[in-house]
Amino acid sequence: MTTGTVQGLEGVVVAESTKSLVNGIEGKLIYGGYRIEDLAENALFEEVAFLLWNDRLPNKSELEGLRQTIAAEASVPDAVIEMLKVLPKETNSMAAVRTAVSMLSPYDPDAENLTDKDVAQRKAVRLTGQITTICAAWARIREGKEPVAPRHDLTLAQNFIYMLTDEEPDQTSSDAVNVYLVLLAEHGMNASTFTSRVVTATGSDMHSAVVAAIGALKGPAHGGANKEAMKTFLEIGDPARVDEWFQTEVKQKKRRIMGIGHRVYKALDPRAAILKRHAKALAQSTGNTKWFEIANRLEETARADEYFIERNLYPNVDYYSAIVLYTLDLDVDMFTPLFVMARVAGWTAHIIEQMGGRLIRPKAQYVGETDLAWVPLEAR
Amino acid sequence: MTTGTVQGLEGVVVAESTKSLVNGIEGKLIYGGYRIEDLAENALFEEVAFLLWNDRLPNKSELEGLRQTIAAEASVPDAVIEMLKVLPKETNSMAAVRTAVSMLSPYDPDAENLTDKDVAQRKAVRLTGQITTICAAWARIREGKEPVAPRHDLTLAQNFIYMLTDEEPDQTSSDAVNVYLVLLAEHGMNASTFTSRVVTATGSDMHSAVVAAIGALKGPAHGGANKEAMKTFLEIGDPARVDEWFQTEVKQKKRRIMGIGHRVYKALDPRAAILKRHAKALAQSTGNTKWFEIANRLEETARADEYFIERNLYPNVDYYSAIVLYTLDLDVDMFTPLFVMARVAGWTAHIIEQMGGRLIRPKAQYVGETDLAWVPLEAR
Repeated sequence: MTTGTVQGLEGVVVAESTKSLVNGIEGKLIYGGYRIEDLAENALFEEVAFLLWNDRLPNKSELEGLRQTIAAEASVPDAVIEMLKVLPKETNSMAAVRTAVSMLSPYDPDAENLTDKDVAQRKAVRLTGQITTICAAWARIREGKEPVAPRHDLTLAQNFIYMLTDEEPDQTSSDAVNVYLVLLAEHGMNASTFTSRVVTATGSDMHSAVVAAIGALKGPAHGGANKEAMKTFLEIGDPARVDEWFQTEVKQKKRRIMGIGHRVYKALDPRAAILKRHAKALAQSTGNTKWFEIANRLEETARADEYFIERNLYPNVDYYSAIVLYTLDLDVDMFTPLFVMARVAGWTAHIIEQMGGRLIRPKAQYVGETDLAWVPLEAR
Repeated sequence: MTTGTVQGLEGVVVAESTKSLVNGIEGKLIYGGYRIEDLAENALFEEVAFLLWNDRLPNKSELEGLRQTIAAEASVPDAVIEMLKVLPKETNSMAAVRTAVSMLSPYDPDAENLTDKDVAQRKAVRLTGQITTICAAWARIREGKEPVAPRHDLTLAQNFIYMLTDEEPDQTSSDAVNVYLVLLAEHGMNASTFTSRVVTATGSDMHSAVVAAIGALKGPAHGGANKEAMKTFLEIGDPARVDEWFQTEVKQKKRRIMGIGHRVYKALDPRAAILKRHAKALAQSTGNTKWFEIANRLEETARADEYFIERNLYPNVDYYSAIVLYTLDLDVDMFTPLFVMARVAGWTAHIIEQMGGRLIRPKAQYVGETDLAWVPLEAR
């Protein structure tokens, strides 16, 4: 590797942003000026989306207006639902969501307006609602059930539970989904947000940028990690097996624990702490405590190990969000689409911030041959 | 802007690569060791794809094997064709292609294999054929015509002309398409290729990475530029109007000429020189010389102007490729999909090169508030 190559662009500052501050050393996260702890405690997901899009909190009527607009625009064209029904049931859920979101743009009257930031905000609102509907619809379609249309009187978190279960949303589940969405809505220049900004910097449209971001979030080293974390908990299967599993798999076989460690956080991810409390409360209220206990004991075991202490390896947001989502009875393959539902707020805020900015085009260091003489096909 | 921010990542080296060398100062382009002039003169597009995927030229039987496999695997699932037929006819062609390519993955048995490079190469071969079929199918569907299935006995360029016209492909058109595909197949760390690498670095799948790249290429500052260049030529409409248009629009109104100037090339883009010769030959063989004459006279006018001379602004690859594609009777909205057909070779080569590499995650400089006290909704 030449010295000039910046592996993974680590430490390179690519843009200024008013969206969020991630202080990985102190374990601090701020959206538009407000601590994540305050937002998780008090805010509706719609309130956080407003904050990210407008760089300020809404007043009461602005918030109710946004809630209504998101709910009203959450309907998805029939053609998109029909496409989802045609897909094989075993289709990867992120591939299904990626395709459905891509297919929204032909039906969005604003899709090809590439420059107007007010229009872009309208699209962000619409996409936020529509993606919720797509995620719930796919969760049902893949199980052979009919999708349920969104209601106009619900919050986004309530609407998701309603569209998922076709039942009146209960408070505990809606609250858990709302907190999850608030915590996952935004996180600085992560790989999917960066992807959406690279696409936007070519002057491309918001749907293209969001579809690209979905593709990036799908990766196991990014949004796919909550799914991988849950697979680990399922593999362990019993709180009593944690110590043995840790000794064999981690200490002897040197396996990584998915959901522990983060590129940026060298302290406890503040989102993990909040989600851990919610995971515990959910476990207690549902009586399904096994998965929380496995995760909790594995965390304690790892945090008592020198290797994890020395390297500042703590559970990240994926670790306890896996427990929250699984306790809500969501299939593991639906975990990353839930992340999409949340992060679309941050992506679209960054997309609008990036609009009109400079083309993002780094360089590659060419390390191949440079002067090969052409050899005709017959002579090879 | 803080001093630490690298605008557009200009000059930042993000990876080593054996795929291509772009020397913008000397106006030199090399794919895997071979000069672009040699490749354009001698190589089939399939030969270039082989070179990009394997870092060497194929022998005769390897090339024929690849040609056959691409042609045989170019079939697109019926469900994807049906989805294209459902879309509104006025759908942006890149949005249609993006959605169709995204919808391929549920039907690709290798789609969710994320780590095996041999499997990845198989997917690259398949995608290269299928994207040709999708582009030709959409070009027909949007005009209300039935799509035509690929033939097993043709080269990719011939197959495209065949599927587009439903007629035996003529040599002149196939050759022009082949040269276009060879010239556009690869170009270092451009914005769409970079996008595909950022997505791949999260561990995501090849379809996600290619879909993201399509979204980036769609932008007017990237692959959408050939479309914009053609719109300028159409606006001028007559070679005799070039001087007047240049004076009014460029000199007085300070409009940019789309297709002139490039982030990397500060000399004549070698691809533009080759495409110019082909555009001229096509114009002469078809008798439709008007568009070539407009482009040629506009180039001469611009190159005689101090502003363009001082800033080393030359026609880039989009400028004369617009003339080639328009003379082939392709609708302007199909120009960027043709670029996709070519660049999928380069994207997939870079994706395979990136697989297993480090997560690409730069930083943002947070410039918002940091310590706002929470204000309850009722108090706002």
